[in-house]
Amino acid sequence: MRLTSHVLPDGTPSYGRVDGDRIIDAGAALRAKYPDLKAVLAADAIAALEKADGPAIAVRDATFLPTVPNPEKIICIGLNYMGHIKETGRDKPTHPSIFTRYPRSLVGHGQPMVRPKVSDKFDFEGEIAIVIGKGGRAIPAVSALDHVAGYTIFNDGSIRDFQRHTTQFWGGKNFDRTGSMGPWMVTADELGDPTAPQMETRLNGAVMQSTSVGDLAFSIADLIAYLSTITELAPGDIIPTGTPSGVGLFRDPPLFMKAGDQIEVEISGIGVLSNPIIDEA
Amino acid sequence: MRLTSHVLPDGTPSYGRVDGDRIIDAGAALRAKYPDLKAVLAADAIAALEKADGPAIAVRDATFLPTVPNPEKIICIGLNYMGHIKETGRDKPTHPSIFTRYPRSLVGHGQPMVRPKVSDKFDFEGEIAIVIGKGGRAIPAVSALDHVAGYTIFNDGSIRDFQRHTTQFWGGKNFDRTGSMGPWMVTADELGDPTAPQMETRLNGAVMQSTSVGDLAFSIADLIAYLSTITELAPGDIIPTGTPSGVGLFRDPPLFMKAGDQIEVEISGIGVLSNPIIDEA
Repeated sequence: MRLTSHVLPDGTPSYGRVDGDRIIDAGAALRAKYPDLKAVLAADAIAALEKADGPAIAVRDATFLPTVPNPEKIICIGLNYMGHIKETGRDKPTHPSIFTRYPRSLVGHGQPMVRPKVSDKFDFEGEIAIVIGKGGRAIPAVSALDHVAGYTIFNDGSIRDFQRHTTQFWGGKNFDRTGSMGPWMVTADELGDPTAPQMETRLNGAVMQSTSVGDLAFSIADLIAYLSTITELAPGDIIPTGTPSGVGLFRDPPLFMKAGDQIEVEISGIGVLSNPIIDEA
Repeated sequence: MRLTSHVLPDGTPSYGRVDGDRIIDAGAALRAKYPDLKAVLAADAIAALEKADGPAIAVRDATFLPTVPNPEKIICIGLNYMGHIKETGRDKPTHPSIFTRYPRSLVGHGQPMVRPKVSDKFDFEGEIAIVIGKGGRAIPAVSALDHVAGYTIFNDGSIRDFQRHTTQFWGGKNFDRTGSMGPWMVTADELGDPTAPQMETRLNGAVMQSTSVGDLAFSIADLIAYLSTITELAPGDIIPTGTPSGVGLFRDPPLFMKAGDQIEVEISGIGVLSNPIIDEA
């Protein structure tokens, strides 16, 4: 099943499931019980979404929110594909590199990603992101996939000069509305083997990044085990798993996004996350 | 005025003001309008707390929550006192180093800080923390202090081996219940010049860190200006401003906290934040 967070024509935030080229809104039927998709995940109630009936919205007309608009945590992994590790001049790491994004740094599918006034170094990073279903602490790798509700597409949009102000990546990763998540999550049972998909990032149609998710240095299970050693994972938490080689910063010459560009990340079995770029007003 | 977040004897989370050795609980009077201290700050309603009447709780009997238990953001500054910068072997930075903590990594005054099973490298970091009142983006340094509701004490408890797993500090800073914030916030008007206080960290009564807040490399106004360039600050956001020299990691020999220890951070004009250390169950 494919699950969305979206805004209804009257402006109400809602959620639902995708059925072909339509979204079946489930908010009217379920919102009293589960105010948002995070609450559905916390109640282990995805099955209720499959049965809920409601108004249909054409996918092409929908206003998408980030897959989970209000996650407690967005824990990002840096440097997790060997090709990208090599292009940054680093060796194979012994532990995952971790930084965080705040929800206000993200927009949904179709919404503009905003290049801030203070920088012209706005880069893309296509990623597959884990959506946590069942929370937990100290989760063993062997049972880690039981904690995954599904997967979504993430564009870890980065302001490269601010990212390099210090050793800590945070500043380059948290400008408001510089990242994107969506268009929906695909449940783990529907996606099947999460290492099988191919991922491609395209800028104005030109392929910038192309990889198999199977090339991850730290596996999805290992990431969940490591992160849950540190902190309790909660339903709706998002774990973007890192980007492959091909980012704009390490191209020759470097290539950055500007107003009027269209950036797309496609993952087979999930869909296409597409966003126009605009300048900060 | 000194403002607390605390738990009532019946288990209800609440908030109030400190009056001598008592807390005057304001939750019963104000909770319908402002569910928590963050909501008070968002409504610019601190004055309502001054007038609210309610049951008194002796400070020594109170169960404290972190000053703001549910901030949208806890944006920590690393390497912001020259003495600490030197002890880590670094040069004077050109920009603030930034990482984040999640609320579940913190406890309130008097509550145990928990050394995790996986490490014996549990270190203290005494800090003064900014509590944001009025939110905003791209706040100029010249008016930044208008956005400060007050100040509180922060213990940025750190798991040093995990902090050094990669270049990113996050992993060492986010173990559940390893940090502390409290016992209360002092409003900006009552504290006066925020660079005037003295800060001291004591482990089992022995002085570990001692500094003037005036020795900050990046001032409180400069931190607010820089951070709000990146993301919109919101009422209740917490900005711990960095720790001075004297942390356990750089002592000879290194000194780490263990079960049975008592760690205290005192800042003149605010109070004493004190926590016992226990082992993870």
